[in-house]
Amino acid sequence: MESSQNSLPDSAAILQAAQRIKTFINRTPVVTSSRINKMFDTEIFFKCENFQKVGAFKARGATNAVMSLEEDLITNGVATHSSGNHAQALSWAASLRQNKAYIVMPSNSSRVKVEAVKSYGGIITFCEPTLEAREETLYKIICKTNATEIHPYNDYRIIAGQATAALELIDEQPRLDIIITPVGGGGLLSGTALSVCYFSAGTSVIGAEPEQANDAFLSFTQKHFIPSIHPDTIADGLRTSLGTITFPIILEHVQEIVTVSETAIIAAMRFIWERLKIIIEPSSAVPFAAIMEKKIDVRRKRTGIIFTGGNVDLDELPW
Amino acid sequence: MESSQNSLPDSAAILQAAQRIKTFINRTPVVTSSRINKMFDTEIFFKCENFQKVGAFKARGATNAVMSLEEDLITNGVATHSSGNHAQALSWAASLRQNKAYIVMPSNSSRVKVEAVKSYGGIITFCEPTLEAREETLYKIICKTNATEIHPYNDYRIIAGQATAALELIDEQPRLDIIITPVGGGGLLSGTALSVCYFSAGTSVIGAEPEQANDAFLSFTQKHFIPSIHPDTIADGLRTSLGTITFPIILEHVQEIVTVSETAIIAAMRFIWERLKIIIEPSSAVPFAAIMEKKIDVRRKRTGIIFTGGNVDLDELPW
Repeated sequence: MESSQNSLPDSAAILQAAQRIKTFINRTPVVTSSRINKMFDTEIFFKCENFQKVGAFKARGATNAVMSLEEDLITNGVATHSSGNHAQALSWAASLRQNKAYIVMPSNSSRVKVEAVKSYGGIITFCEPTLEAREETLYKIICKTNATEIHPYNDYRIIAGQATAALELIDEQPRLDIIITPVGGGGLLSGTALSVCYFSAGTSVIGAEPEQANDAFLSFTQKHFIPSIHPDTIADGLRTSLGTITFPIILEHVQEIVTVSETAIIAAMRFIWERLKIIIEPSSAVPFAAIMEKKIDVRRKRTGIIFTGGNVDLDELPW
Repeated sequence: MESSQNSLPDSAAILQAAQRIKTFINRTPVVTSSRINKMFDTEIFFKCENFQKVGAFKARGATNAVMSLEEDLITNGVATHSSGNHAQALSWAASLRQNKAYIVMPSNSSRVKVEAVKSYGGIITFCEPTLEAREETLYKIICKTNATEIHPYNDYRIIAGQATAALELIDEQPRLDIIITPVGGGGLLSGTALSVCYFSAGTSVIGAEPEQANDAFLSFTQKHFIPSIHPDTIADGLRTSLGTITFPIILEHVQEIVTVSETAIIAAMRFIWERLKIIIEPSSAVPFAAIMEKKIDVRRKRTGIIFTGGNVDLDELPW
């Protein structure tokens, strides 16, 4: 029997998500560096979702959502508003079922991101760059097309899909002491926390967030929802606020949220590029920035880090 | 019985080199991209030596040379002149035996490369940036220290070591139609050609070279040695001339050498960064540039490419 798709994912739901998406997504590698381990007196396992389809873990949640929709709910396509990796992921996932993806993007989206969404077949509608305009435009499109909305993170199917990244990491490296992920809307962090809860008791889950977009840190420490106001960080995937679905999971299953400076994010990103020879986007660098800034003590601990994505505009590097 | 280290490596010598170095070097991954394969109607297997120790395949040859030296030949250290990856590789390999590496570098070497050699413990002597000054300075150092010279490519032990990259690729992906490597001094290309000759009959070996440093192409087509004169290419690892040892092997065992434009090298490098999310240096991009420029027909062929290294100065990107 399938677990319900519209309630908090239990362990079966996460295993079913993994099964549902596995022929479409990449089982991404886990990489290590003896030099980095030596420098930080630790053992770090980097789960490379920058090598995932569409260049980000978002392919997991989007595929799980699209593939679990009943035929009558997918036939008119899917829709979302996003300027980031979810827009690409949803466009790509819809194309796997030969369905349409309607993507509302702010008019100031970068050319690179617009081109990427187009390349995966997404049908773009531009709007003013405000949350109100995005939501209103999306509402109009859904009324007109009868497409099914797939929210980037505040959706149990998305959370179950994102949870599969940690599931694979745990499978490959059991008995981790810590897993660190970035936190934006909380889809990855809540999914990771659920996978750890079900499959890796004893592992601590820590969220890492830019100081300049610290809504999750504030919400977590004050135990009530505080939205992101004027987030100003290079980690563009982490500017969103937690959701009504992700926040309670995080409150219950995450041990700590730490914040890092912009300087540390850029330094961590560059360090990973130079040492590991792989391309990660600024949001991906936030957990390692927390280690560099000594916000998390990883000494002599087996530490998992999820590199969330590798979509960077090479004409706009921060150094 | 060990094969002789000072003659053309036979198949046993290459297998022994692989055995000798395997606990020190990385068995690097072979990556593929379904999107790239679709775009070029081919099946490409990228052997990622950019993830090798010191960030380049040069770790293989240097380790094989250092590890196969008799105790009395290593006790006074090793020496070379190099401004590139061989300098780092030799410094690193010498440190594995707790020995010294004396590195002669031109005074105009980039700060990044000097720092890298220092970080591996290399003892640097600067000289004027001419071949004469480099050779003269090296000669003086060897007279003074009694160190053993390890040439970057014109050395059978180096060639046997570099041959192990193709050996691993062939082991993981048998029945390749083509293997393409860059060609500078010819250490990698000749080693690859030997591995293919012994272990993968039926595979063609092609060298790819910058048009603006086309000494190997000229030497190969005219069947006599023509040195590199004023090479002016961004692929800084490929500015050297073929050697007296590498050239005959290439003449006998390589099927073709093609040349590519500077524009294609930069475009290929950027394409790989964006699509594969991995960092390769300009020299690494030359084989793929040959495919983009249609200098090699890879349609419906199983094609191996060796990414030679990933050491790039992120402050000096060519776009």
